[in-house]
Amino acid sequence: MTVSPTAPSALHEDRLLPSQPQERAIAREIFAATSGLPIVSMHGHVDAGMLASNSPFPNPAELLVIPDHYLVRMLVSQGVPHDSLGVPRKDGGAVETDPREVWRAFASRWKLYRGTPTRIWMEHVLESVLGVTSALSAATSDEIYDAIAERLAQPEFRPLALLDSLDIEILATTDAAGDSLEHHAALASDGYGDRVVPTFRPDAVVNLDRPDWRASVDAMAERSGIDIVDYASYIAAIESRRRAFVAAGTRATDHGHLYADTEPLDPAEAERVFQAALKGEVTGASARKFAGHMLTEMARMSCEDGMVMQLHPGVLRDYDPRVFAERGPDVGYDIPIPIDHARALQPLLTRYGHDPRLTLVLFTVDEDVFGRELAPLAGVFPAVRLGAPWWFLDTPEAMRRFRETVTDTAGFYNTSGFVDDTRAFLSIPARHDISRRVDAGHLAKLVAEHRLSLDEATETAIDLAYEIPRAVYPPLSS
Amino acid sequence: MTVSPTAPSALHEDRLLPSQPQERAIAREIFAATSGLPIVSMHGHVDAGMLASNSPFPNPAELLVIPDHYLVRMLVSQGVPHDSLGVPRKDGGAVETDPREVWRAFASRWKLYRGTPTRIWMEHVLESVLGVTSALSAATSDEIYDAIAERLAQPEFRPLALLDSLDIEILATTDAAGDSLEHHAALASDGYGDRVVPTFRPDAVVNLDRPDWRASVDAMAERSGIDIVDYASYIAAIESRRRAFVAAGTRATDHGHLYADTEPLDPAEAERVFQAALKGEVTGASARKFAGHMLTEMARMSCEDGMVMQLHPGVLRDYDPRVFAERGPDVGYDIPIPIDHARALQPLLTRYGHDPRLTLVLFTVDEDVFGRELAPLAGVFPAVRLGAPWWFLDTPEAMRRFRETVTDTAGFYNTSGFVDDTRAFLSIPARHDISRRVDAGHLAKLVAEHRLSLDEATETAIDLAYEIPRAVYPPLSS
Amino acid sequence: MTVSPTAPSALHEDRLLPSQPQERAIAREIFAATSGLPIVSMHGHVDAGMLASNSPFPNPAELLVIPDHYLVRMLVSQGVPHDSLGVPRKDGGAVETDPREVWRAFASRWKLYRGTPTRIWMEHVLESVLGVTSALSAATSDEIYDAIAERLAQPEFRPLALLDSLDIEILATTDAAGDSLEHHAALASDGYGDRVVPTFRPDAVVNLDRPDWRASVDAMAERSGIDIVDYASYIAAIESRRRAFVAAGTRATDHGHLYADTEPLDPAEAERVFQAALKGEVTGASARKFAGHMLTEMARMSCEDGMVMQLHPGVLRDYDPRVFAERGPDVGYDIPIPIDHARALQPLLTRYGHDPRLTLVLFTVDEDVFGRELAPLAGVFPAVRLGAPWWFLDTPEAMRRFRETVTDTAGFYNTSGFVDDTRAFLSIPARHDISRRVDAGHLAKLVAEHRLSLDEATETAIDLAYEIPRAVYPPLSS
Repeated sequence: MTVSPTAPSALHEDRLLPSQPQERAIAREIFAATSGLPIVSMHGHVDAGMLASNSPFPNPAELLVIPDHYLVRMLVSQGVPHDSLGVPRKDGGAVETDPREVWRAFASRWKLYRGTPTRIWMEHVLESVLGVTSALSAATSDEIYDAIAERLAQPEFRPLALLDSLDIEILATTDAAGDSLEHHAALASDGYGDRVVPTFRPDAVVNLDRPDWRASVDAMAERSGIDIVDYASYIAAIESRRRAFVAAGTRATDHGHLYADTEPLDPAEAERVFQAALKGEVTGASARKFAGHMLTEMARMSCEDGMVMQLHPGVLRDYDPRVFAERGPDVGYDIPIPIDHARALQPLLTRYGHDPRLTLVLFTVDEDVFGRELAPLAGVFPAVRLGAPWWFLDTPEAMRRFRETVTDTAGFYNTSGFVDDTRAFLSIPARHDISRRVDAGHLAKLVAEHRLSLDEATETAIDLAYEIPRAVYPPLSS
Repeated sequence: MTVSPTAPSALHEDRLLPSQPQERAIAREIFAATSGLPIVSMHGHVDAGMLASNSPFPNPAELLVIPDHYLVRMLVSQGVPHDSLGVPRKDGGAVETDPREVWRAFASRWKLYRGTPTRIWMEHVLESVLGVTSALSAATSDEIYDAIAERLAQPEFRPLALLDSLDIEILATTDAAGDSLEHHAALASDGYGDRVVPTFRPDAVVNLDRPDWRASVDAMAERSGIDIVDYASYIAAIESRRRAFVAAGTRATDHGHLYADTEPLDPAEAERVFQAALKGEVTGASARKFAGHMLTEMARMSCEDGMVMQLHPGVLRDYDPRVFAERGPDVGYDIPIPIDHARALQPLLTRYGHDPRLTLVLFTVDEDVFGRELAPLAGVFPAVRLGAPWWFLDTPEAMRRFRETVTDTAGFYNTSGFVDDTRAFLSIPARHDISRRVDAGHLAKLVAEHRLSLDEATETAIDLAYEIPRAVYPPLSS
Repeated sequence: MTVSPTAPSALHEDRLLPSQPQERAIAREIFAATSGLPIVSMHGHVDAGMLASNSPFPNPAELLVIPDHYLVRMLVSQGVPHDSLGVPRKDGGAVETDPREVWRAFASRWKLYRGTPTRIWMEHVLESVLGVTSALSAATSDEIYDAIAERLAQPEFRPLALLDSLDIEILATTDAAGDSLEHHAALASDGYGDRVVPTFRPDAVVNLDRPDWRASVDAMAERSGIDIVDYASYIAAIESRRRAFVAAGTRATDHGHLYADTEPLDPAEAERVFQAALKGEVTGASARKFAGHMLTEMARMSCEDGMVMQLHPGVLRDYDPRVFAERGPDVGYDIPIPIDHARALQPLLTRYGHDPRLTLVLFTVDEDVFGRELAPLAGVFPAVRLGAPWWFLDTPEAMRRFRETVTDTAGFYNTSGFVDDTRAFLSIPARHDISRRVDAGHLAKLVAEHRLSLDEATETAIDLAYEIPRAVYPPLSS
């Protein structure tokens, strides 16, 4: 093997594999066994409506720039205003409306993404999905824009066609408790019911201090046909919606809490706090307690209905209130904070951690927590699986550190296998490709250090990429 | 050098050395200088009675599976019940009693241990100590069981014979304050007094809220012949037991606290809390304060009697109360939590941190703490040495991170050198072997990056493996 | 390339570059583009008076040993008393006065520094600056002492001559709010006004519970000519001093707080706390609140006068009160503690984090914080730049981890580029050399893994070493 230092970096066949020749040779063999496996995407945020309508994507900027908070936040951090990136204002004020200009604002600052996963994802999307091989720059911006736009107009670039061509075996979306699931019903009637499945995400109804709590509870009441007047009817409505989700093919729930608290409230206290919330009088402390209580309730329900429970705490959402007021959530202002995990999860785990009906996948964006608390928990509680490095950690370096840190204590088989986490539909293959390459490199190192045989390493790589996620998120008989 | 990717991974002569050929060549030279050094094992948990009786080990399962919490917790995490692993119940209820079945439950799940230190330890024990070279599997389980059982029946596999054949120069055990030290007396009368030494572990008598506190205090009273009726007589009893331990060859104390608190209480407050404990009325907060107070008292006593003080805080013991009630402690349910170290240790260190009579070895299972707090403390206080990566961190990757993180600030010579931490007697050589290989690799990298000469690296490797532990834990003239 | 394991490690031309041959070849090319760049040193602690007087350095011990807290703390940690190192006592008590003896105490313990940055810095200073190529030891101590002393007597080793020969384009010092700036005035009249610039460090006047607070406020009042009788006059005096600093060429402020708190007080509360401080009645809690308030005030002032704001919280200063009483601050007893960053900085960032007039460079000595909190903040707030790994993290390994951890989320261009942090004038080139080598190695790995082209990597290396620091700390038009 020779490394040609001047070769273009985009999509080199050995990209992200170890540079050390012995390790690279082994890694190539391992990667060859996983690179062609179908994609199992059980933790995505792709819009179900986009898939159901199967309309052509509008334009390069609205597809690849404006909704991608990784990409937008980098430009903002270097002084590019949200307005000039076309990020919509809640007050309907003017923002850049020419997608070509938005694309230029991005393409001309391509340099900023050196060393970031956004660069790797975008290169993969451009070359491997869209067939664009020119490097992004101010000079090439329009030419690339036009090339992408031309592709997007073709039938093979419609969402459902891409589901096939990208070899996505199953794709989970994320859906609120009050969601109608109409898009999933439409997809099911088109034969996609086992392939595009909802995920039950009740955050808006369990966090009593969210601005959208009341509206979300009302939506859930309407969908469930249950009049929510007290804690009991609230729980009944949630259980009703969970049944509807299971019937629609859902395999998992998803919980994004600020804290990992799981201490249950006694019924009278739960009722008291809930009534206060109905009156709009809940305090922050009560809301925190109630959210913790509901996590353990959700574990109980998962034992009953079989949905895998996914938890990712520790992110302070909407850090800047002015930006939130102006643009809403999910525009790049969610910031990780250190929180307690081991003690916070103790009430839930001592109740349900040995229950064979429960699978609890724990994610974090705090790398300390993986080794110190989550790997020891996953390494003893049968219910716990470690979620993949996620969000800010969905990067080659963090994936490598994850394997190097948690495998000691949790092994490979107490992890969830690779679980992507993106709303950028076209980048799903890129994310799995990175994970498979990094795992191949990590396993190759173990082989090169005489800690695993090549056969074992190859089997492990296949398990991590495909078999484990399928086993962790099985279909439910509804 | 060529790497043969299909070679069996077990006990390759270059295992765990860097795969990069230049570094490996250097690492081999360094490792050649340490691989044959005797083992100094100053922080072990091997049962002194086992050594004193020198009986044959019972069977492979009782020797290698049931008491090994690393191994058992992995099986439990994948749904294997404690009962089927033969882990005894406190209520005397039925558990698997056929050791061959227990061994099968383990051997058939060998795949789970890929990438874990348990795999490395077990391969070393099987091949290097027991002469078994077949790979574990369901198919080979019985054959390997029989081979091990045959070895264990031979006289050269009795404990004291192994002490010689494994080249263990000195082995410290861990002993409660109220222990009779009768096994050590027996060993001493057989000529092993300088080779198998007790360690004074007073956790059960300083943590007032432990369920076994009162019984432990009573045992200490009986052993010391001191009637413990107040704080003064309690301290006198501890000091008396420490003298007995020193007389029995003890070199160190060992303290496993939840917090690193060391704030002293004034005498009246200490008396008040102690009296409350005698009445069974101590609170959690008082117990925590008293435990902190006692750490600084223990530092004072170490200054007086010369015993090295070992502290490893930050582990929440017996995380699951139902498992604890059913199986007792040390079955894999101890989970690290983040705690304050720098401020907590300040009272002790500002009193005794410059005292030339004190050596305080600080361990942690929270890797953050090594770099952020412990290395800066060890790098300035003469009394402080950094304990080796320990327990969940007793792994090749964590050892490597330890060297890469703490050497900057503490150097090599403010560490304790390698200190193993195991109750698995046969695995002691494996643990030292791993450490010597990882240190050889780390030092080889420094040589390859032209930061150390090979001579310096080799001397440092010998110091870490042998000279520093001997110097940090010297014999005391009792 | 061949690695000769027996080559002396000092100043090998490839030192600190990756050992893997493909990566090393690339790293050499990248490093060739940065190794000759001038030094931009915007966060130093060199004494302005030393430069202004331009006197010869006194002797090797007073230049290289006694004032270097990295070096001294290592010797202290191994039992060498401060007295025998000539570290002055506040009570004027006797300490070693023979610099040759102090030098011997250091040289004879050279082994302790293996693997530490002090070793690399000292080797660079000795060989590259002072022309000494012998290795330090007890045997060579005197010979090396004499060689250094001889150099220091020569005119080309006077401070201002070294400023040229070390190719330091600009050097920032650190100066108290009440400093007269007379040395900078003298330097300016000698033509060094743009080359040696002050930095405004108001810690002593904003931390109300510092023992030197009142004296520092009095000094500021005298310098500013403003009678400080209330909060308003206090703020006016600070603003006045800031104007004087800007006029003297200052480009930045520097803030070393224990906490990162930035919550503003309302004016009445600020006045109340300030009046209590004037009466000597301030509490620790009030002082903490006031310090946090003042950070946001400083951000406001930076928006107005353009000075870059540098913040490095989280270090518990003067950990041992007896050592502090005996020797004063800055003798190696500052210990990092974990503190909250994301929430603590929220008040400041939501007020000024999008203000195009502000640049806030955030440093930390807690590596967890870089990835978990600071990179996400720098990756979205236009005002924030990540400061270089600093103090305990100013090491090859920590620099590498910094790039591997923060680049994912913040990229290269939201960092400050390399910013050294030393009071050891002669070691400034060593620190930049290390950074350039480590960055070359990191970038070479990205090239070898086909993630960047060599051209991109080389441009990035130049930006990190030179262009970014110049852009982050621009001259102000006063």
